Amino acid sequence: MKRESRLICWIWWVLIVTALFLMGFIIGWFAKPTQMNTENEKASSQYLREFLDEMKTDQIREHLRKFTRLPHLAGTEQNLKYAEQIKGEWQQFGLDSVEMVPYDVLLSYPNESRPNYISIVDQRGHEIYNTSLAEPIPPGYEDISNIVPPYSAYSAKGQPQGELVYVNYGRTEDFFQLQREMGINVTGKIVIVRYGKIFRGNKVKNAMLAGAKGIIMFSDPADYWAAGVQAYPDGWNIPGGGVQRGNVLNLNGAGDPLTPGYPAKEYTYRFSLEDAVGLPNIPVHPIGFHDAIHLLKYGFINDIANSTLFAMSRNMGGQIPPDSWKGALNVSYRTGPGFVDDHRTQSVRMNIHSDNKVTRIYNVIGKIRGALEPDRYVILGGHRDAWVFGGIDPMSGAAVVHETVRSAGKLLGKGWRPRRTIVFASWDAEEFGLLGSTEWAEDNAKLLQERAVAYINADSAIEGMYTLRVDCTPSLHTLVYDLTKQVVSPEDGEEGISLYESWHRRDNWTSDRDAPRISKLGSGSDFEAYFIRLGIAAGRARYTKNKKTERYSSYPVYHSVYETFEIVEKFYDPSFKRLRTVAQVRGGLIFLLADSLLLPLDANEYADSLRKYAERIAQLAQRNPEQMETYQVSFDPLFSAVQNFSVAARDFHERLQTLNREDPLQVRIINDQLMYLERAFIDPLGLPGRPFYRHVIFAPSSHNKYAGESFPGIYDALFDIEHSADQEKAWQEVKRQISIAAFTVQAAAMTLTTPA
Amino acid sequence: MKRESRLICWIWWVLIVTALFLMGFIIGWFAKPTQMNTENEKASSQYLREFLDEMKTDQIREHLRKFTRLPHLAGTEQNLKYAEQIKGEWQQFGLDSVEMVPYDVLLSYPNESRPNYISIVDQRGHEIYNTSLAEPIPPGYEDISNIVPPYSAYSAKGQPQGELVYVNYGRTEDFFQLQREMGINVTGKIVIVRYGKIFRGNKVKNAMLAGAKGIIMFSDPADYWAAGVQAYPDGWNIPGGGVQRGNVLNLNGAGDPLTPGYPAKEYTYRFSLEDAVGLPNIPVHPIGFHDAIHLLKYGFINDIANSTLFAMSRNMGGQIPPDSWKGALNVSYRTGPGFVDDHRTQSVRMNIHSDNKVTRIYNVIGKIRGALEPDRYVILGGHRDAWVFGGIDPMSGAAVVHETVRSAGKLLGKGWRPRRTIVFASWDAEEFGLLGSTEWAEDNAKLLQERAVAYINADSAIEGMYTLRVDCTPSLHTLVYDLTKQVVSPEDGEEGISLYESWHRRDNWTSDRDAPRISKLGSGSDFEAYFIRLGIAAGRARYTKNKKTERYSSYPVYHSVYETFEIVEKFYDPSFKRLRTVAQVRGGLIFLLADSLLLPLDANEYADSLRKYAERIAQLAQRNPEQMETYQVSFDPLFSAVQNFSVAARDFHERLQTLNREDPLQVRIINDQLMYLERAFIDPLGLPGRPFYRHVIFAPSSHNKYAGESFPGIYDALFDIEHSADQEKAWQEVKRQISIAAFTVQAAAMTLTTPA
Repeated sequence: MKRESRLICWIWWVLIVTALFLMGFIIGWFAKPTQMNTENEKASSQYLREFLDEMKTDQIREHLRKFTRLPHLAGTEQNLKYAEQIKGEWQQFGLDSVEMVPYDVLLSYPNESRPNYISIVDQRGHEIYNTSLAEPIPPGYEDISNIVPPYSAYSAKGQPQGELVYVNYGRTEDFFQLQREMGINVTGKIVIVRYGKIFRGNKVKNAMLAGAKGIIMFSDPADYWAAGVQAYPDGWNIPGGGVQRGNVLNLNGAGDPLTPGYPAKEYTYRFSLEDAVGLPNIPVHPIGFHDAIHLLKYGFINDIANSTLFAMSRNMGGQIPPDSWKGALNVSYRTGPGFVDDHRTQSVRMNIHSDNKVTRIYNVIGKIRGALEPDRYVILGGHRDAWVFGGIDPMSGAAVVHETVRSAGKLLGKGWRPRRTIVFASWDAEEFGLLGSTEWAEDNAKLLQERAVAYINADSAIEGMYTLRVDCTPSLHTLVYDLTKQVVSPEDGEEGISLYESWHRRDNWTSDRDAPRISKLGSGSDFEAYFIRLGIAAGRARYTKNKKTERYSSYPVYHSVYETFEIVEKFYDPSFKRLRTVAQVRGGLIFLLADSLLLPLDANEYADSLRKYAERIAQLAQRNPEQMETYQVSFDPLFSAVQNFSVAARDFHERLQTLNREDPLQVRIINDQLMYLERAFIDPLGLPGRPFYRHVIFAPSSHNKYAGESFPGIYDALFDIEHSADQEKAWQEVKRQISIAAFTVQAAAMTLTTPA
Repeated sequence: MKRESRLICWIWWVLIVTALFLMGFIIGWFAKPTQMNTENEKASSQYLREFLDEMKTDQIREHLRKFTRLPHLAGTEQNLKYAEQIKGEWQQFGLDSVEMVPYDVLLSYPNESRPNYISIVDQRGHEIYNTSLAEPIPPGYEDISNIVPPYSAYSAKGQPQGELVYVNYGRTEDFFQLQREMGINVTGKIVIVRYGKIFRGNKVKNAMLAGAKGIIMFSDPADYWAAGVQAYPDGWNIPGGGVQRGNVLNLNGAGDPLTPGYPAKEYTYRFSLEDAVGLPNIPVHPIGFHDAIHLLKYGFINDIANSTLFAMSRNMGGQIPPDSWKGALNVSYRTGPGFVDDHRTQSVRMNIHSDNKVTRIYNVIGKIRGALEPDRYVILGGHRDAWVFGGIDPMSGAAVVHETVRSAGKLLGKGWRPRRTIVFASWDAEEFGLLGSTEWAEDNAKLLQERAVAYINADSAIEGMYTLRVDCTPSLHTLVYDLTKQVVSPEDGEEGISLYESWHRRDNWTSDRDAPRISKLGSGSDFEAYFIRLGIAAGRARYTKNKKTERYSSYPVYHSVYETFEIVEKFYDPSFKRLRTVAQVRGGLIFLLADSLLLPLDANEYADSLRKYAERIAQLAQRNPEQMETYQVSFDPLFSAVQNFSVAARDFHERLQTLNREDPLQVRIINDQLMYLERAFIDPLGLPGRPFYRHVIFAPSSHNKYAGESFPGIYDALFDIEHSADQEKAWQEVKRQISIAAFTVQAAAMTLTTPA
């Protein structure tokens, strides 16, 4: 018995030991986490809250104050000093790395000893009137040196003299109307056009194509004056002596004019100035409306600008133009050419002595290394260089980036690290043709093409006091909506309501979509190379005016000396809450793109947008139904491709529902499809004549760099139909562009299907 | 006491239970595998062995027999039938999917009712001699129809008549010598050149540039006759009536001439023939050496070809050329122009009536879905279309692919599935300018650019009986060596020694590298779009002749009707062991690229090659030391970039040593760097004037499509130095190309560094 019971005892022991061991084993097996994605996502969401809450109005005010005390034009010592300061502070904030990245690019400056101006000269060639050499200095800045006088950067040198012809906004259609309908030839004339509607470089190109030997641009109050607002410093309108500076290049995305396609490094081959990209070959100069009156006509301007009155007795001659050509000055806006009456023998002379110079510029690049996918980049970039102080453009944006970096640094201190790498950029020489950002894009093209998830632009954060404005690629729509629901409205009296709600109230999309309006990206800021050349999903956000009631272009003091810290502090955003809101939107986008397990990009939104764009462009073509028939032009392949894309997008997002989020390879594969979706729209051959505009869905029109067009290849081809003598050839080009668009959309659809 | 002991007992119990549980837990924790990579690698290596061993000589013989019975020119019914058969068999072999992918491309055929030929005409225009309309039919094929007569595909139509000028091989330097040294102008003449040395399309282009109104090409025995070998069917030399067919396009990688850059689908826009890419605008025709004698001179040819003798009394006139212009025919190889003596008044007339026709072609695409990374593609592609039977070109290669698919199917049946996706392709219309492969590359460009790991080409598997020949990108060198050590030599008397060893004995690289020779890729086969346009690592392998002793171009019967099954079976590879060896090399490469955990690509080898190429191109430039000084040409930036690349490559492979192979994300990140290494050398702007040749390190010379040059941009610029009147401009281009090369290598180095 004893032995038996002992045996039983042993058996019991063995059983118990085995059972316990097994229990332990099983618990151990299952206790071991394979992934912690759900928990990670919770933590990420908590960190986002802290990240947004850390952004402070006082800090943004401080950043803006600090970086707007002195003029800091690209290529100047002061702009380098600010770069060094930003580098130092980003390091202090806690970024993993911050570096200065220099390039040597072609810039353009007025000649310090020979000022630029326009004269009216009499028959003996004596100057009887000269435009002003500088803007009146704003109060508080009287002792500041190095304020660059108003000029058109990259203007050709020269002193052309001739009769003046007024050509409205200088658009393609304005020149067309002038030449074909009014019968006025501008060959050998000097044209004067008002600023607005289109990018100034396009005006210059049109003037060159029309044969003008010089072009003068002025800010008409009709386009740069808000009703019921005082001129600076009493309000935010531009004084009559204020002038809009700006470059007049036609780069079409080439970056540095001497090194198209390649970064402007020390060893890089440079073209001669004759072979440079986009330089105008005629003199160009900008003036304010006080000076413009003198050139356009003797008379009184409207009282709107409290301007001094000059009494002179010269008139522009020629036809009285249609009303759409008339601005708000008290002149008749006659087209010319030349003056009338006693002044027939007088003419206009431009005196332009600006120099093009290869000059060193500096980007500041800061990074937070991604914890799990260091080879995936989310970029927040904005420029630092300003025409003068840059109170709005760009420092309102740079201050926002600075605060975003500070807040991200705080999070890093708490142990957070994003899944992907975040890159912060302070670009240089944006005002000279997006040079800093484009050279860096060229320098890093391969890395960006293979690894960049998204680019968020940070130019001016405010251009009005009304509501949010977002321009972005369709795949970011959903993210923008989701995020803005988590940000509060900055407006007084809207405490507790979300930014989304505030924005929605003020700017509902259209009758067919009940959501805040989001627009297409055009160009004119640093996202260009990233979006239009490289095909990286991109977006921008800022505070804006009420487009329905405020008709002026841009904002009145744009690119003048009156863009000061004070104009923001006194008028645009006294509480600095609007800027904080913009910081939260830009920063929040970056955060979510960098830290979400699944990339927050929406292919269905792209599909919807493509459908709308296809319908719109087909309608545009249908204005010529007979030719459509004659040349057998069909949009069916495009509609069919868009349909395939829609199906692929829907299926893709359905597959996402059943994705095993614990499998790192499956997640990466899906994210790669999302990341490369935007890339799929890039055609390495570029748009016709524009090798660096490679996005088949979005690019500026050839006739206005600011206007983002959908299906720009087709759009431009249809635009040419209007002006082309060879209709057969023009329609063949429309057909070719439809074919390219259809193929590209079809190829993009393929990238969304199951990979093998 | 009792309670105490009981307590102690309980404590013991608890301790033991806890200890056991913990033990179980710990063992359970660690027993749970996180990955099974080591085991997977062992299994993979076992599967490789089975994969290679499964390939059978009898099977390859069978495949070759099956697909060479009938002519199967691209665009013909028979070639579609073979496509359907291949599709069916690949499905039976067990591929996951097989599809036919059609395109509608521009092909060129002789006019069936108006044959092409060349005449000698007398002064009254009567034809006194005509070249043959067809090759003598090889025995056994007497009843076969649809043998296309020899022609130059895409020749212009026309009947130009004029004096004949002989221009050796028709190379740039031959025309240069003719015009500058001999003072002979070929404007308005018909040129006759011998085949060989360079791609025939380049000869045609040179003739056009020189102003010729027609060009005749012939196979000279000096270039297409192996010593001591009989003409087919008694040996593998070309009979005197045999002619080399071939296209004479200058596509430079454009694919279908009517749809450059885009796939030739139904809806694709097509250029008119006037705007088509690469079509010659003069008539072109090929002849055999029997006919060539008649055109070149009355006389006897060497007895080598057992040719019939014609006695006629006409002579080509003109100078006796240098020895390097003389072939092996018993004629004087005078340059002309025209004939002498009684025959002065006779001239040559070409009668060419071929038509260009948009025709449907079919690729067959088969896939094995990758188990873990379905979005990574390894491609094995080769063409199926043949000029006639395609006994060597391409069916020796197609038979090898077929056997590879069969063997892979067997493995799938055993439960194997590769880590990555494998794509098998049977391309169509390679002979017409690589059309099938290029259109598919255009169709899938985005997917390939983002996902393709490597492309292995499978054109003719044999062109000689001596040893292995491999041309590949440098990053594949190490893999090729590793693999060939696992394959046995097919040569009799070399049982038990490896292919590597056999190859090494026969073709040692150079004095500075003791290893089997591997060459650069040129062009002329279907890898072109994948490698040179898209930047996908690529390679090719075949059995070849002894280059040191066998001087003929290509192989003698190349593109003639004598490329039969029998020529392989009787002469080139009676045991079919050589073809099996090629199958094992091509298949083994695919296997290892698709199934290795870490991609078997070697950045250090790329670094070594870049260093050699840089030294070589700098030496080439140094032939002009004075101009180098005058124009301040420096290769320093290139050497510096190469040095940076070498350091980055070395560091990269060091990091590989410490990589955590169990972490799927880390492995993927590293593999992405390896995959994208080749892509880093692609410049989207393309080489000058050649938008579809985008590889900065490797491309054919502009003067010979067959010759792969390293740093082709610099090479071509230096070549132009020799012939350019504007030396300043020519040297500026050299400088620009050096700058582009330096930047590209530098950018490639950046892709190898730690990602953030």
